[in-house]
Parts: sequence; structure tokens; C-alpha cells
Amino acid sequence: MFRTLLTCTSSKEGDIIDVTPQVETAIAESGIRTGLVHLFVQHSTAALTTIEFEPGVLSDLKRALSVLAPDDADYAHNNRWGDGNGRSHVKAALVGPSLTAPVENGRLLCGTWQQIVLLELDVNAGRKRSIVCTVSGA
Amino acid sequence: MFRTLLTCTSSKEGDIIDVTPQVETAIAESGIRTGLVHLFVQHSTAALTTIEFEPGVLSDLKRALSVLAPDDADYAHNNRWGDGNGRSHVKAALVGPSLTAPVENGRLLCGTWQQIVLLELDVNAGRKRSIVCTVSGA
Amino acid sequence: MFRTLLTCTSSKEGDIIDVTPQVETAIAESGIRTGLVHLFVQHSTAALTTIEFEPGVLSDLKRALSVLAPDDADYAHNNRWGDGNGRSHVKAALVGPSLTAPVENGRLLCGTWQQIVLLELDVNAGRKRSIVCTVSGA
Repeated sequence: MFRTLLTCTSSKEGDIIDVTPQVETAIAESGIRTGLVHLFVQHSTAALTTIEFEPGVLSDLKRALSVLAPDDADYAHNNRWGDGNGRSHVKAALVGPSLTAPVENGRLLCGTWQQIVLLELDVNAGRKRSIVCTVSGA
Repeated sequence: MFRTLLTCTSSKEGDIIDVTPQVETAIAESGIRTGLVHLFVQHSTAALTTIEFEPGVLSDLKRALSVLAPDDADYAHNNRWGDGNGRSHVKAALVGPSLTAPVENGRLLCGTWQQIVLLELDVNAGRKRSIVCTVSGA
Repeated sequence: MFRTLLTCTSSKEGDIIDVTPQVETAIAESGIRTGLVHLFVQHSTAALTTIEFEPGVLSDLKRALSVLAPDDADYAHNNRWGDGNGRSHVKAALVGPSLTAPVENGRLLCGTWQQIVLLELDVNAGRKRSIVCTVSGA
């Protein structure tokens, strides 16, 4: 089992960052040929998933998340804490913080149009985000 | 690999239960210092995710789930079975039953504002819920 | 650790395929008695989750996904690529490609009403879908 911390910095709410190259690098460093890579984003206003990394569909995904948690809704979280990021927490809880993908021949075994992405959901800009990356196998 | 069963009892639909302390206890019992903890809720009307365990944002999350599966919609599941919990199944399938988080130094390696929660989505009250907890590593 | 590839063929958008029997077969082939089974669908317009495999609730789930990504919305993905499957990508990214479930006594340790399903979300019919299945444990 090999562990490392991946980091990236977002510039604004709604940023979607392709972390696939960093995950590939971590797998290479691990020396593991066949196994699994687990990713966990250590923040309650960011999330992980896979998607085709293409600007059109990324904007479509953001719109869908706004259906769940509209910008102009009244958030109890904001009323209590004055944070303004109630919608960010809601979206992050629904998409989830965790992703596991297969590794084969020392490479990610995802589909061709399937990239691993971090969703920056917080309303506050320029956040450094940490992803705990664990590669297991042999 | 260490396995145990975590249980909790909900009192009503929409309950969100912080299971983080139970997960920490299981990790301590396992003796595993570095690895992963996997959780799986064995029910089709409950789900697992992470969120800041703060009453405001928990109510915001419940509202978002109601956008997906409103109380007053017509459910084919209810029409077939007279169960009344069609919305519960839908929400559970979308959030998902499974969560994996990293373990380091014998502790959960989540973010500060990131608790592991069970969502009680069933309309029937007072259910005992089981989560299979598996800790792997060394 | 044991790895195999599960495949299934969908006939149309919205198909929900119960892959539980195939997963059980893979676990049996692995010879692993206690551990975890990880599934990863290698496509950006399909997803994995658990649900009670009952036609009523499956149609309820499809309706909920249409709230997130309606058929008649305007998709930037479609405008750019003329694909027509913008909604498929959005739904797949929200449900997610990955699922891990516990194995005990050489069997899946899911709930009674909890089947593992592949969601065919693409608008194009008759697709062969691949799920990388990894069983770990002892």
C-alpha cells in the first residue's frame, strides 16, 4: 500500500479540475501494477467524480448541481453561520468525497472519455484542496 | 483486514446520524494504523455520505433531496406495493450505500468539517440500521 | 486479489440491469471468503448504484434523474459535439462509476432488498458495457 497527498488550487466556485495526470503519477510512484487507487477529498465543499473533461458537459454538470441547490435559495446554514456556502455543502454531500478506480499494468483502467475530476463547490475563491491518494495491490 | 458491524437506530424520516465516533472506535479496535475504512449500509432506504454535522446544513441537504424526490410526487413503487417509501428508495440510490475513507496513525483522515453520516430516508420510524465496517491496511 | 471483467449489453436509454448474479459469480471464482468487491464501470454515460430491483422504483429513479438533467434542456455538450447525450454524461457523473461492497462467507453482504445495478444512461441503444470487478481479501 502506497499513500501520497495530491493537491490542487481552484480559482473560483464551479471550477472542475482534471486530476487524472496526478493520479497516474501517484500510481507510477507506487510501483503497483495491479490493484486499486482510492481518492478522498478532505473538504466538505469539494467533491470527486468522473466525467468526460470537455467544457460543454462540465457546464451542463454545473447547471444540474444548481437544480439541487440553487444559488438564490434560502439556506439554514447561511442563516446560522453567515457563511454563504450552504449550497456548496449540499452539492458536495450529494456527489461525495470518495472515488476508487482500478489499476492495471501500472495505469488507471478508466474509460477513454472518463477523467477523474475535483469539483470546487465553495463560493470562496482560490482554495488549496487536498486529496488523500492510496494505491493498494501488487 | 478487520470487520465489524456498526448499528444505529433512527427515530424518523430525515434523521441524519453522525457515525464518525463509531467508525473511529472500529479503527482503534482493528489495530490498523495506515489503510482504508470501508462502510456499507445494508438497506435500500438509507445512505452514507460526509457533511459538516451542523443542523442548518443538514436541513439544507434534506431540502435538496426533496427536489429529487418530492413528498407529493406519484411513485410507481407506492402504487405497486402500497409501501409509501418510493421517495426513500430513490434518494438512497442517488446518494449511495458505500463510502471509503483513509486511515492514518490509527485515525480517520477526514477534513475538520467532514463527518461521516447515515441518512435515514425511510418514511417508517424507529429503524435499526446496520453498517458493515471493514478496515484494511497494516 | 482477483480481477475479472463483467460485461452486459443494454437495449435502450434508461435500462437498469441487475448485475448482482454476475458479481456473485465473480466472488465465487475468486475463492475469497472475507473481503471487499469493487466495481468500476468504464464509461462516462453509465453508472453503478444499489436499489431494490423492482420495476416501480426503477421508473421512479429514472424520473428523479430527469429532474437533474431533463430531456428537453439545452446542453452545451450537445451544441458542441452534436452528440445528443449531454444529459447522459450529467446523470452518470452525479451517480458515479464506482461501488464497493463487503464479501462474507464467499457471498455479497448486501441487504435483502439491495441489488447492484448498472444504469444505462446513454441515448444510443444497444451498448456493450464493461465493469472492472476486483475482489480483495482472503
